[in-house]
Order: sequence, then structure tokens, then C-alpha cells
Amino acid sequence: MSVLTQIKEAQVSNPVERLMAATAADMERVNALILDRARSHVDMVPELARYLIDSGGKRLRPMLTVAAALLFGRGRGNEINFAAAVEFMHNATLLHDDVVDESDMRRGQRAARMIWGNKASILVGDFLLGQAFMMMVETGDIDALGVLSAASAVMAEGEVFQLAKTGDLTTTQADYSEVIRAKTAVLFEAACEVGAMSGGADAEGRKALAAYGLELGNAFQLVDDALDYGGQSGTLGKNVGDDLREGKMTLPVILALEEAGESERALIASALGNAEATDLEVHQVVAIFNRYDTLNRTLAKAGGHARAAIAALAPLPEGEMKTILMDVVEYSVSRAS
Amino acid sequence: MSVLTQIKEAQVSNPVERLMAATAADMERVNALILDRARSHVDMVPELARYLIDSGGKRLRPMLTVAAALLFGRGRGNEINFAAAVEFMHNATLLHDDVVDESDMRRGQRAARMIWGNKASILVGDFLLGQAFMMMVETGDIDALGVLSAASAVMAEGEVFQLAKTGDLTTTQADYSEVIRAKTAVLFEAACEVGAMSGGADAEGRKALAAYGLELGNAFQLVDDALDYGGQSGTLGKNVGDDLREGKMTLPVILALEEAGESERALIASALGNAEATDLEVHQVVAIFNRYDTLNRTLAKAGGHARAAIAALAPLPEGEMKTILMDVVEYSVSRAS
Repeated sequence: MSVLTQIKEAQVSNPVERLMAATAADMERVNALILDRARSHVDMVPELARYLIDSGGKRLRPMLTVAAALLFGRGRGNEINFAAAVEFMHNATLLHDDVVDESDMRRGQRAARMIWGNKASILVGDFLLGQAFMMMVETGDIDALGVLSAASAVMAEGEVFQLAKTGDLTTTQADYSEVIRAKTAVLFEAACEVGAMSGGADAEGRKALAAYGLELGNAFQLVDDALDYGGQSGTLGKNVGDDLREGKMTLPVILALEEAGESERALIASALGNAEATDLEVHQVVAIFNRYDTLNRTLAKAGGHARAAIAALAPLPEGEMKTILMDVVEYSVSRAS
Repeated sequence: MSVLTQIKEAQVSNPVERLMAATAADMERVNALILDRARSHVDMVPELARYLIDSGGKRLRPMLTVAAALLFGRGRGNEINFAAAVEFMHNATLLHDDVVDESDMRRGQRAARMIWGNKASILVGDFLLGQAFMMMVETGDIDALGVLSAASAVMAEGEVFQLAKTGDLTTTQADYSEVIRAKTAVLFEAACEVGAMSGGADAEGRKALAAYGLELGNAFQLVDDALDYGGQSGTLGKNVGDDLREGKMTLPVILALEEAGESERALIASALGNAEATDLEVHQVVAIFNRYDTLNRTLAKAGGHARAAIAALAPLPEGEMKTILMDVVEYSVSRAS
């Protein structure tokens, strides 16, 4: 087998690559729109926005919007605007999150706030949000606008909830489920739903894609939260234990606290939210997680959401895009193993 | 004359009080909607939002939306949603501005960020913006949504431009005009325009109200920027010289720099953007302003915009609301004298 064939085989077997190939033509239009709408006569706006936008994100959310539209045969072309709007909403959130989390890194490179400062990150985030709404409004689709504007409010609410729960040892599994639903899954849900709407889906199809997106988003965030403790530094552009040092009450911590003895609890509590926690302290906490198998249990929960995502698509007619969307779910869960 | 009559006379002679009286019934609905949409199951959201919303702002922008609708006879009731949305957009901007400007005070009380922190202020601002868009979407008026979403993007762009020009001694009068148009006047313009649209205005009426709002907003910001150096501390909830210490390139500074000699220039430059500048230094800078009459020249420019605002309404039929809107312009300029 030639090297080229091998590469092609590998690409074909990676569902995200297959999703990219299947959406490539439309995503080219989405990317052009993204570049166009990140422009401004104020130099700092496109500089900062493009630094983040071009930083190697997979653009999974807008791809899902486009894929959902293609799944139903494509509608009036609104999916291009919605896809770009979804990516802008996502990037606005990243800019604000990095300020709130005081993150130094994003996608393996310095966070925008480390170069342009917190102030510019806040304001350019606001600009991207405004541009996102302008692109939505241009479609004239008021139902889809309702979906996306509700997502925008819920996302912010979820971020506030997460902030309020920071370092709170009494945070429950239910609290956590609400946080990840609001801060992550709702945008996946909206991205898929407005895609389906643009593709001309009926009520059942729209509901199926919304459920698919929501469950995929939940699975995605659960995997992320497990990877934060198990992934190799650099691979995800994040350092192991960032969530711990930021005091984020993710499922691995919550599950461990439920079973931990007094001394284990004290160890977790002292590292949680301590930006200066040493690698040794992080390792000790991860050792407690391993004792109670909380990383695997977090991934198992991700697996449950993944199955629900796949089940949501079951009623829809078979086809290549449906297969890709199902495979993307499995792939996004498998990245943690 | 009885005391009560005197109070009534005084109320009647203050155009903002007359505007309040003329819009009272609708503003009651707007205020109820504002309270309703500031609710959240996340306690911190309504706590912070209501602290700011209830802090004694005059709600001038939503009153203008309602007044513009009433001026044209009132439409389908959309002005209630738009008015609340405009107030949420304004308050979201205030929350983010206070973080960006590192302000300790807002409307004469501690800024929200001093109580709940910068992080919560950023995220609750995002929440208010999301809720604003939801309220707009509920109207189903896609044209008005276009006006308000464009305003949202331009406002953020204006804030970035202002940030980029912070402490920049080469800032021109044209730069300044662009900053105040974008960060302040565009929201006044949108507030009035969508009000007129809700009231059933024709194209000419809509254009007249948009122009009125834009010019009033420009006048309003110019007066604010003059008052920052001349108002009495406490009256506006701001300390004299805040803009100077934050490095804001407002017209009084720009005009002074155009004429200042070398030593005056050095004095301004050393105080500009210096958070630790003493009251003496601020006074020395204000003395330079007085030497070149830059506060009065700033107010004269405000007067020009005020006249343009009044002229914009000229083509419209006479009536009580038109008179009030014209008088509000004069009043907003006169508050600096």
C-alpha cells in the first residue's frame, strides 16, 4: 500500500475527517463568511478575532450545522449564516471564558488575553456576539433566531452557575449536569437544530437533531473533563489539572468527594482552586480519582450520552451523512481512551 | 402657592419628568418585563442584575423607545419588548465597561464588580445580552432586530476603538467623534428607531427618529465628557478626572493638546492614564483646559448636536410628545451649565 493510500485510508476511517470532507464545499463558504465578518476598521478587532479563529479549532459546531442541513437535503442556504454565527458565539464564549478562568493557553498557543489583554478580549467577544446576531437576523428565520438567542442566554447562565459553584465541595452531580448542559451542550443542540431547520426538516427531524446535538455536547464535555486529568499536556493545549487549580467542580472531583475519607477530602480541598498547587499535589488527587475509578466513571457517563445521541438519529432514514454523524459521536468519546 | 403645587410645577417644568409622566403606563410594563427577564435559577444572576438595574438609572433609553412609539400612535406593543431589550443591552455594556475601566463606582454606589467580582460582571453582562436578544426575537420584527443587532456590534467595536486609543496623544477629533457615535449614540439611535417602527412610523418618521436619537446620543456623551472634568463629585456618581486617570481621549483633552505648549503637553501626558494622578495634577490639567476653553468648546459641540436632534423632529406633526422630546434635548445639554 502506498503512503498516500494509507493516509487516505486513515482520513477515511476518522469520522471527523469524513465529516470535514462531507461538509467541505459549504464550510468553504462558512469560512469565507467568518473572515468577512471578523473585519473591522478598528485594527485590534480582526487581529484578535482571527488569532483565535485561525488557531486550529476543528470548527465542529459549524460543521454540525452544515451537516444537519445536508442530512435533510439543504434548504435556503441559511445554514451558512447560522454555521458562522454558531462559531462566532463559540469564540466569543472562549474569549470571555479565558478571562474568567485566567487561562494562559488556548488550543496549544497563548490565549488572546495574554497578547491583547483582558479588556480587548471582553470587548472583541462582545463584538463577535453582535456580529453573530447580525448574521442570524439576515436569514430572516425568526424561529431559528429564537433557538440561538435562547442558547446564548442559557450559556451565559451556565457559566455564572459554574462560577458560583467554583470550589464548592457540596456541588452535586445534578449541579454538574446542569452546568455542562448549559455551558456546552445547549450550543451543540442549537447548532444541530438550526441546521436541520435550514435543511427543511419536519418537526420530528428537527427534534431528533436537537436531541442528537444535546447528547453529543454532554458527552463531549464529560470527555473533556476526564481528559483534563488524564490527557497528555500539549495534546489538548491544556495542562493536566487546570480544572483542579481553577476550582472547577467537574464530575471526577464530585464522584471522588462522595466516597473520599477525611484525609483524602482534605487533600482534594487543599488543591482545589489553588492556582499554586504543585504537580505532586495534582498527582495525589488523581491517585484518589483512580482509587474510586472516577475518571472511568466519568467516561462511562459520557458513553451513556453518546448512546443517546446515536439513538436520537435512529428514526431518520439511513444515509451516508447519518452514518458519519453517528460515527462522530463514537469518535468523540473514544478520544479519551 | 402650596408646596404641593410648587412640586408639581417643578416636575412639569423638568422635561425628563414630563417624559416619565408621558410614558409611565408603558414603562410600568417595561419595568415588569425587566424584572421578569432578570430572573434565573442561578441566584447570582438576578442579585447582580437587579443591583445594577435598580440602582437609580433614569432608564432614558427605554423611555425614548416607548415615547417614539407613542409619538406615532403606538403599534403592536412591540415597543415594550424593545424598550426592555435596549435597557438590558445598556446594562450589559455598563457591566463590561466597569470591568474594562476598572471603575469602583457606578451611579453613586459601588460598581457591581466590586461586590460580585469581574468574572460575574462579565458573565451576567453576557446573560443580559442573550436575554435582550430573546425579547427582541419574541416580537418577530426582523427589521427591528436588524437595527438592534447592528447597534450591538457597533457598540462593541466602538469600545474596542476607545480602548485602542487609550492614552494615545495623536487621537484626532474625528477619532473621538467615531468613538462616541459607536459607543453611545448608536444605541440612542436604535432605541428611537425601533420605537418609531413599533409605533407604525413610515420611512420618513423612522428616519427622523433615528436621526433624533443619534444626535441626542452624541450631545449626551459630549456633555458627559465635559462633566467628567467639571461636574461636582457625587452628583454624577463619578469623581472629577476619572476619564483623565483612565487615559480616555475625550474632546476636552484632544482640543487642549491641539493648542498646548510643550510644558502643558508634558503635564497632560503625565496625568493621562495615570491611575495615581493626584487631585492637584488633575486641577493643573483642568486649568490648561480653561486656558483654551476646551470644556466650553466641548459643550458648544454638544449644543450643535442638540440643535440637529431638534431639527430632525421638525418635519413631524406638532404634538405634546414631540414637544417633550425636543425639550428633553435642551435639558440634557443644560445639565452641564
